[in-house]
Amino acid sequence: MILYDYWRSSAAYRVRIALNLKGIPYQSVPVNLIKEGGQQHSADYAALNPNELVPVLVDGEVTLNQSLTIIDYLDEHYAGPQLTPSEGKQRYLVKALAQDIAIDIHPINNLRVIQQLNHRFDIDERNKVHWMQHWINTGFAALEQKLAPIRGIYCVGYEVSLVDVCLVPQVYNALRFGVDMSAYPNIDEIAGRLNELDAFQRAAPDNQNDAT
Amino acid sequence: MILYDYWRSSAAYRVRIALNLKGIPYQSVPVNLIKEGGQQHSADYAALNPNELVPVLVDGEVTLNQSLTIIDYLDEHYAGPQLTPSEGKQRYLVKALAQDIAIDIHPINNLRVIQQLNHRFDIDERNKVHWMQHWINTGFAALEQKLAPIRGIYCVGYEVSLVDVCLVPQVYNALRFGVDMSAYPNIDEIAGRLNELDAFQRAAPDNQNDAT
Repeated sequence: MILYDYWRSSAAYRVRIALNLKGIPYQSVPVNLIKEGGQQHSADYAALNPNELVPVLVDGEVTLNQSLTIIDYLDEHYAGPQLTPSEGKQRYLVKALAQDIAIDIHPINNLRVIQQLNHRFDIDERNKVHWMQHWINTGFAALEQKLAPIRGIYCVGYEVSLVDVCLVPQVYNALRFGVDMSAYPNIDEIAGRLNELDAFQRAAPDNQNDAT
Repeated sequence: MILYDYWRSSAAYRVRIALNLKGIPYQSVPVNLIKEGGQQHSADYAALNPNELVPVLVDGEVTLNQSLTIIDYLDEHYAGPQLTPSEGKQRYLVKALAQDIAIDIHPINNLRVIQQLNHRFDIDERNKVHWMQHWINTGFAALEQKLAPIRGIYCVGYEVSLVDVCLVPQVYNALRFGVDMSAYPNIDEIAGRLNELDAFQRAAPDNQNDAT
């Protein structure tokens, strides 16, 4: 199993957590999104994924991009904790909450969006931070409200789910950009507990070989 | 079945297509994203979906947001064409391509992002259009390349899939913002063919009761 990876990519971070939770050994191949104008734009990488984004997972003859698709694939082919319940009402609850993070928050405030804002509107550091905070605060405010009545020790009850896998990288980003987490006690507490788990610790950006 | 809907929302448009393909009758409840500062921000709607986004589907006791989750739910509970194959390699191909549109393109250039760009950076109409075009062109260039070797009469082979359901609303947006579709002959031809289908026509923004 090969993961084309970048230490600070939230999407790659999700896949690292899922692989660790399932106990699947993998080889990380770092794709540096900053160096050389972004190694994801190299001809070799663009041939692997024309989107020129990480992560990509290669499992034998299967090559997949999109972190949520990769995690569904792992969930449906490998043992270990089921990250999306295979049926019942909680199946859709988990999917929707994970997408609240992976679709409504993350795509608007990742590296390539900030690069475009810089390029087009010449924004300064303060405005960049405000942009990041705005989308994280908007999403976290809704998520905090949704988690309150359903949470257990993790986001959805008492088993780690795909929501937790998406939450921790987003909280990492939130802290990086100075979001005040005291407004989100449920999120903050759950993320803190998840970060004590070995699978999450080993997946953390600062614990990757390519971290600088 | 009740769909909280807005004629120009790409995400709601996807759900309308899926409902029509499956032949499920539904009642559309328009949520005007522009009027009154955005009806999605009203207390009643925010109680239904704290994210304050459309669509939301209510099916008896089930209330769901996130268009991709809603469509998975419909796929797994209702008859009609299977939009994501239930197994096999094509299952993940369909998921990843749909997410290439629904995660990598659409969230960065919807109404609320443009409103924030206006609010924060006071961008003019030309820059707004360029922003929209940039993300659609970036995503379509990759998608065009991916579709070339796998497409049939539709995106993935010869049956309508979730990829087609995501593609048509994104092409509608592309045309609205003046993207030159001649650069994407596969996408353009497939979207043209899909738009001849009754399920897609009835879901089109201009055919909704709340279209203005």
